Amino acid sequence: MERPRAWVFTLGTEVVSGLVVNTNAAFLGRRLTLMGFTVSGVLSLPDDIDAISTFLNYVLKKYEPELVVTTGGLGPTYDDITLEAVAKALGRPLILNEEAYTMIREKYLVRGYELTPERLKMAYLPEGAKAIPNPVGTAPGALLKVGRTLVVCLPGVPKEMEEMWVNYVEPSIRELSPAKVSEGSFTLIGVPEASLAPILKNYISMYPRVYVKSNPKGFELNAPVLEIYIAASAPTQEEASGILRKVCEELIQKATNIGGRIRDLRC
Amino acid sequence: MERPRAWVFTLGTEVVSGLVVNTNAAFLGRRLTLMGFTVSGVLSLPDDIDAISTFLNYVLKKYEPELVVTTGGLGPTYDDITLEAVAKALGRPLILNEEAYTMIREKYLVRGYELTPERLKMAYLPEGAKAIPNPVGTAPGALLKVGRTLVVCLPGVPKEMEEMWVNYVEPSIRELSPAKVSEGSFTLIGVPEASLAPILKNYISMYPRVYVKSNPKGFELNAPVLEIYIAASAPTQEEASGILRKVCEELIQKATNIGGRIRDLRC
Repeated sequence: MERPRAWVFTLGTEVVSGLVVNTNAAFLGRRLTLMGFTVSGVLSLPDDIDAISTFLNYVLKKYEPELVVTTGGLGPTYDDITLEAVAKALGRPLILNEEAYTMIREKYLVRGYELTPERLKMAYLPEGAKAIPNPVGTAPGALLKVGRTLVVCLPGVPKEMEEMWVNYVEPSIRELSPAKVSEGSFTLIGVPEASLAPILKNYISMYPRVYVKSNPKGFELNAPVLEIYIAASAPTQEEASGILRKVCEELIQKATNIGGRIRDLRC
Repeated sequence: MERPRAWVFTLGTEVVSGLVVNTNAAFLGRRLTLMGFTVSGVLSLPDDIDAISTFLNYVLKKYEPELVVTTGGLGPTYDDITLEAVAKALGRPLILNEEAYTMIREKYLVRGYELTPERLKMAYLPEGAKAIPNPVGTAPGALLKVGRTLVVCLPGVPKEMEEMWVNYVEPSIRELSPAKVSEGSFTLIGVPEASLAPILKNYISMYPRVYVKSNPKGFELNAPVLEIYIAASAPTQEEASGILRKVCEELIQKATNIGGRIRDLRC
């Protein structure tokens, strides 16, 4: 079973210029991996219609991934241009979306604000899109099918994005990936990363659906400390857990054989 | 004066799968912006030679940016393949670099470890590269000129990357950007983002070298709270500070005119 592929576009000049740390990328990368997707790339671009539509087009045509998620650029300000860029990339017009219009109208009427042109702009989605409700903020999201790719556009404010992701997007995309993933980790003390390298290299060829990564965590009393992370993917949760336990046991055996000590075992 | 453009590639399966939060992107975005660069894009890719070389090639040919920085994938393990991907993208061979070899040899001899094939791999850089010393870890960086683009490859461990960036890379690239940047911010209470939007929109057309961004910070006693960030770029620090102060004063004037209150002024 081939893992479905996802691309994430985290958009906004504040992201590329380092004004914010890109926690949206980490959140989505984590959730998608757990759902059995391979995250093929995460691209941050400034609020630039040409750059966004160019790269979106390139990724859609070249890779035809099962899923593209964008975050950011859905709000009322002049630099919120994501949907314009998506519409340009797909060659579809932006049209007033009835669902989105209703969502926005209700938000502003409740707070006693007028429906200015800037606010109304948030109700324009690419033709054929479904509006995604935003229970935390005002800008609705958009979900549309482009060839074999599902494109999901979410706001950049983490609280809004996460809430919409968990409550609306995940239930909508579950059918894209039948895979289950099981994850574990342990801390390994006393084995330098380069001594572990040939052992991990063997694993990648033995188990193509296992991901093993060593992260150096510094030194304790001159002994190198590594965090070993393992993920296993399989059609059922039970199989995935079984593979994880097996790989974990074997790795611990081999690492202790070359003088390593194990701590914080979670496998 | 056109601002020089930079692209950042933050490489590693642990980045795209959300195992780590991409603080390297934030650090580099911030430092590059302060040095007067426009960060045109930040791309995270898994440890995949084809994907990395494809996108590196695409960015180099399409945009010819002044600077490309890569982080990650320089270590001894099987999935550390960044330099192989860079060499492939540029059509240059990886060769044993004398400087890098000396750096690595000294590191391992001091700690009493052998120079295994995995460790020796870190001394192979693309032909024509200069080795960048790594005062914190073991893998040296690489710096090479490709047409009009300077390509800089750094390790992914934040402590190593940051130390090498500040002490070695910044002094080497200062001549690429003559621009100085001045930054300021304030908190604005009581004005919804959409009411501020038309004012900010005017600024972008009036001052093309000023960057203004509003970030929603939630509500206090039902009043919306926005953080307003302003950056101004100019040939001298004095001019940049002058523009920043002017824009800041004008924005505060306009925001208070529509009922806003100012706090935490840093302009």
